[in-house]
Amino acid sequence: MPDLHQRIASFRGNVFPRQAALYRRLAQDGQQPQALMISCADSRVMPETITQSGPGELFVCRNAGNIVPPFSNMNGGVSSAIEYAVMALKVHDIIVCGHSECGAMKGLCCPHLIEEMPNVQAWLRHSHAARSVATQLYANELDQDDMICAVTLENVLVQLDHLRTHPSVAAGLAAGEINLHGWFFDIKTGGVLVYDGAKERFVEPEADAPLPVAVTGRSRACMPVALTSAMAAE
Amino acid sequence: MPDLHQRIASFRGNVFPRQAALYRRLAQDGQQPQALMISCADSRVMPETITQSGPGELFVCRNAGNIVPPFSNMNGGVSSAIEYAVMALKVHDIIVCGHSECGAMKGLCCPHLIEEMPNVQAWLRHSHAARSVATQLYANELDQDDMICAVTLENVLVQLDHLRTHPSVAAGLAAGEINLHGWFFDIKTGGVLVYDGAKERFVEPEADAPLPVAVTGRSRACMPVALTSAMAAE
Amino acid sequence: MPDLHQRIASFRGNVFPRQAALYRRLAQDGQQPQALMISCADSRVMPETITQSGPGELFVCRNAGNIVPPFSNMNGGVSSAIEYAVMALKVHDIIVCGHSECGAMKGLCCPHLIEEMPNVQAWLRHSHAARSVATQLYANELDQDDMICAVTLENVLVQLDHLRTHPSVAAGLAAGEINLHGWFFDIKTGGVLVYDGAKERFVEPEADAPLPVAVTGRSRACMPVALTSAMAAE
Amino acid sequence: MPDLHQRIASFRGNVFPRQAALYRRLAQDGQQPQALMISCADSRVMPETITQSGPGELFVCRNAGNIVPPFSNMNGGVSSAIEYAVMALKVHDIIVCGHSECGAMKGLCCPHLIEEMPNVQAWLRHSHAARSVATQLYANELDQDDMICAVTLENVLVQLDHLRTHPSVAAGLAAGEINLHGWFFDIKTGGVLVYDGAKERFVEPEADAPLPVAVTGRSRACMPVALTSAMAAE
Amino acid sequence: MPDLHQRIASFRGNVFPRQAALYRRLAQDGQQPQALMISCADSRVMPETITQSGPGELFVCRNAGNIVPPFSNMNGGVSSAIEYAVMALKVHDIIVCGHSECGAMKGLCCPHLIEEMPNVQAWLRHSHAARSVATQLYANELDQDDMICAVTLENVLVQLDHLRTHPSVAAGLAAGEINLHGWFFDIKTGGVLVYDGAKERFVEPEADAPLPVAVTGRSRACMPVALTSAMAAE
Amino acid sequence: MPDLHQRIASFRGNVFPRQAALYRRLAQDGQQPQALMISCADSRVMPETITQSGPGELFVCRNAGNIVPPFSNMNGGVSSAIEYAVMALKVHDIIVCGHSECGAMKGLCCPHLIEEMPNVQAWLRHSHAARSVATQLYANELDQDDMICAVTLENVLVQLDHLRTHPSVAAGLAAGEINLHGWFFDIKTGGVLVYDGAKERFVEPEADAPLPVAVTGRSRACMPVALTSAMAAE
Ligand SMILES: [Zn+2]
Ligand SMILES: [Zn+2]
Ligand SMILES: [Zn+2]
Ligand SMILES: [Zn+2]
Ligand SMILES: [Zn+2]
Ligand SMILES: [Zn+2]
Repeated sequence: MPDLHQRIASFRGNVFPRQAALYRRLAQDGQQPQALMISCADSRVMPETITQSGPGELFVCRNAGNIVPPFSNMNGGVSSAIEYAVMALKVHDIIVCGHSECGAMKGLCCPHLIEEMPNVQAWLRHSHAARSVATQLYANELDQDDMICAVTLENVLVQLDHLRTHPSVAAGLAAGEINLHGWFFDIKTGGVLVYDGAKERFVEPEADAPLPVAVTGRSRACMPVALTSAMAAE
Repeated sequence: MPDLHQRIASFRGNVFPRQAALYRRLAQDGQQPQALMISCADSRVMPETITQSGPGELFVCRNAGNIVPPFSNMNGGVSSAIEYAVMALKVHDIIVCGHSECGAMKGLCCPHLIEEMPNVQAWLRHSHAARSVATQLYANELDQDDMICAVTLENVLVQLDHLRTHPSVAAGLAAGEINLHGWFFDIKTGGVLVYDGAKERFVEPEADAPLPVAVTGRSRACMPVALTSAMAAE
Repeated sequence: MPDLHQRIASFRGNVFPRQAALYRRLAQDGQQPQALMISCADSRVMPETITQSGPGELFVCRNAGNIVPPFSNMNGGVSSAIEYAVMALKVHDIIVCGHSECGAMKGLCCPHLIEEMPNVQAWLRHSHAARSVATQLYANELDQDDMICAVTLENVLVQLDHLRTHPSVAAGLAAGEINLHGWFFDIKTGGVLVYDGAKERFVEPEADAPLPVAVTGRSRACMPVALTSAMAAE
Repeated sequence: MPDLHQRIASFRGNVFPRQAALYRRLAQDGQQPQALMISCADSRVMPETITQSGPGELFVCRNAGNIVPPFSNMNGGVSSAIEYAVMALKVHDIIVCGHSECGAMKGLCCPHLIEEMPNVQAWLRHSHAARSVATQLYANELDQDDMICAVTLENVLVQLDHLRTHPSVAAGLAAGEINLHGWFFDIKTGGVLVYDGAKERFVEPEADAPLPVAVTGRSRACMPVALTSAMAAE
Repeated sequence: MPDLHQRIASFRGNVFPRQAALYRRLAQDGQQPQALMISCADSRVMPETITQSGPGELFVCRNAGNIVPPFSNMNGGVSSAIEYAVMALKVHDIIVCGHSECGAMKGLCCPHLIEEMPNVQAWLRHSHAARSVATQLYANELDQDDMICAVTLENVLVQLDHLRTHPSVAAGLAAGEINLHGWFFDIKTGGVLVYDGAKERFVEPEADAPLPVAVTGRSRACMPVALTSAMAAE
Repeated sequence: MPDLHQRIASFRGNVFPRQAALYRRLAQDGQQPQALMISCADSRVMPETITQSGPGELFVCRNAGNIVPPFSNMNGGVSSAIEYAVMALKVHDIIVCGHSECGAMKGLCCPHLIEEMPNVQAWLRHSHAARSVATQLYANELDQDDMICAVTLENVLVQLDHLRTHPSVAAGLAAGEINLHGWFFDIKTGGVLVYDGAKERFVEPEADAPLPVAVTGRSRACMPVALTSAMAAE
């Protein structure tokens, strides 16, 4: 990267001065991002650009395949980012954002592409459920490109399921303090498909309607009351 | 157990002969259980008795707290039982059955009870989401016994969430071949509360209505079609 | 399972009332089972039926292959069940019960049967020692069915060896408070073969003799005394 | 995030059209980023902004604390991103970028801040070497803020050490195909300090000099030759 | 170590020449050690000196506490050494050798000594069974020094139990090709206490008798035959 | 090993008496070894002989391949030995010693040799970086024997890199209290090649010069000062 030097100089000389006060305030007061976005490491998918976010607005966790391992006894970087975002930063929205032409999803569908990459293989185990579902549903109907696309969409849903296994997320959903979003960014069109939990499918957001949500947090009714009344009915 | 000897002799002499033909056929043809039941190791919760099942009818996985670890890179006995039940035995129903007076749930709520038991502590990490949810929802309203009961119910739901992270289960649900059940067995009354996924709460099953189901498998609509149509709209 | 509804209703309506007082007492006083039984998830092997046990008598851990992972830094459900049974419930007997026609043991001997089941494969690593021993001893003598049977018996012994690596079991054995049992249930005959630790082989229990035991706990002689006397001899 | 809807619409309507051809080409030809940047999930540290990168230029892995676990038998998302970036994308530069006011580094120095966050605690074990070094060097000289700053700088170096344990990185360095960069972004000033491997300290890049590099890859001399000659000398 | 230079020069100049032919032959033909010795890293316990072994005679694995983790899904250096020694080198004897004044055993009994050493703590989990047994047996009878000694002896037995869980060892024992030895080296006297499996205690070896063995491998009787005969008896 | 009995008797009767006072003092005062040596389990590589060390002088960790896993969340015996040696014993030198004709390195280069040894395979993952580097550098130039030799040398360097990821070692290096040594013992010649960190290659030690060191610990300059001055320059 011959021009790394110029690039950071350009940021500091030309870009930073226009936002110096904002940066200074963020340094003093700390960050208060509204959302955590989990997206792919892919260089064509820039979370802050897609969401037109400035400094301090978006807490971002990126890895190959926008994967969220389920909460278990061996957790790592993604689990820590979730825990920190929910418990320390109190984010209100968590977005899992997949994308078209994803190299990780291609590797999941065509294992020979990653046969020299044992870590990538192991990491993609967290997406096996997406591949199993898509194979089950579409095995005989789709050509390879459409299958990769289908797996990519199912992968977003699988990672949302994994998100819910994290205690902090489960508690936030029960308390109605968090919403979960499942997105798919299309590099060719710049459009974002959004999973609509009520309709159970990805939709293109409509201009005049509210943005569909994958999983809406809501204050749940008290189960023991239901239980007690059921018991009392005997 | 001074009478272990008599007990197995009694089974062989008095009970087995009445079902010898059935056992012999099951030995020859193999098992074809309709359901997998995941329940607690507790001696007061006997899966075959509660479901009035005979030999060959119920594949049973039991552990402290009827826990299902999420699918991840470090899986063990429960994951193997699920995989075998779904892929080799083609079960149609998976039941997670919690129960009243559960020692594991008490340990989860009162950590001092299990402070000398490091394995139990680690195992119950898979139920932390249940405790987090119940604490969030009921912290100031319930006394300890009711809180343990609430945690026990939430724990059934958390384990159902974990079940869905297993590729074989996710694929079976998508294909409409599996239903998931969330039950709570009350030792004092012999009754079973059943989670109704549509109503989002535990209910007592009604005599004339079909048994409520927690998660109904169904053949899903083809997502790429939705995607394509959304794209075509541009 | 079309009749799950009827089944639980039948239990509650017809079976439970005859034992309501017992269940109620068990709910109030807690369980005090005499034994922990570790058996296979197989639907044809019902621990309470084989041992003619009623509610409250048998703490039961079931998984594919009646496996007991050795105590290590990554423990799960079986280790927790053992720890809870020994430390909280003070059971006196631990039974590892294998059985004929076991699908897990078949998978261990014929890996192609489970090549699509990565969790089962990994789980059966805990039985590799049984396969290694049987291959060593019988490789050229037994046909496949007998070999599977031999592996199943060796597997019971391997799991007994694993049991002894758990600190709570090791301490209980040293104090003479626990006995370990190795059983093999034959689905075709209803019979139970029992490992006789003294004779070092499986035997059919004899009517008039005490039930053989695999590993008898006993209060051990004090080693440092032996040591001291040895040292003093110099 | 009430305006998520507007934000993605704004990107698509106002920003994307100006770069539609670039995005389309990147979708067709795939990405060829020059660098992998590993930075913190912090919302105030935007890798593409700091490096003034456009779509397709920067492969980005972000987690709490810009951590790189060492290559081992239990790898996750960061290891996969590295493996994919080096082996599939052939990046030439890997940048580990720490920053001022880092919440993860504060948690590392003040454990009480994260005592309710077990995942964050476990994740920060990968930074313990940084804390050990800083404590060793500066324990009695620095106040808490300076100590956090020192730990943050040492943490960049520790993660560079971890990077070198990854086989793909080790091979790339030996072949002279990769350079490693250690950066520190100061939110208050917009400046980037750069680790100079030759001088063994962080420096501010000078306008007229080349950007200092932490670890320069270079084609290594052939060791067996050295060995042979040494042996021949006998 | 100011004299490391002289030391290796001294070996090469003064010691090696006297055994040059032996070393050369060992380099050409490979090693064929008769035994694997697993002993502590302690500088006062030198395996080759205690056993008066020359080059090529003893395969040696050393770690803090002469520990053998049980065979499981997460194995490391000791398991690899065992596997290599038994399968590639065909050793006939495996010796686990504990010793007096062992720092690891002191840390096991007095956890405050190692509270700053998280790896040592975790590693010693593999010795918890020894501590549990000794506490159970001697809690009220021994002073601290004797208790450490008792734990050290029990630890040798626990590691022998762990050894048996390794498939290669289990197979070798069943085939009568391996013997297991449990030793205790007393630094003060130079004596070795040997565990006598038949007597179930440590003894001082007697001059005229064969060396006692902890676990004697022997060709086992064929279990399926026993089984068949038992079955035939019906 | 028919003569194990004689061997330990010979040590006690003939060798120990000449050093009885030294052993007794070491038992009373504890060990204070100057160095930790990490070497292969190979029977032809005897650390105390190569370094002409007596009792109490060398803390020794041995495993197949003289491997040091990097510090991570799953540590074992080697990590514990390092931690204990540095923190409890305050060693000043850590030597990683590879050797010619190493079976582990042969297995790394010729995987078919170890295809029946899953633990050895997994363990050697910690040496994959060495193989990747050697393949990158010498793939087309060396025959197999020379390649194994090259991998063996690179492996020493990789393990030194791993050593530096351990917090205790990193802190010791920063404080100038520890030196790291990379050695290669040639069985055929008895010679030791030593890695010279300054020259970046293995050399034969010269008689009149100080022994070259791989990584020299040194009291590092205070980074925050550098930082502060850089910042002040704005
Ligand atoms: Zn992607
Ligand atoms: Zn329970
Ligand atoms: Zn079975
Ligand atoms: Zn940060
Ligand atoms: Zn020791
Ligand atoms: Zn070697």
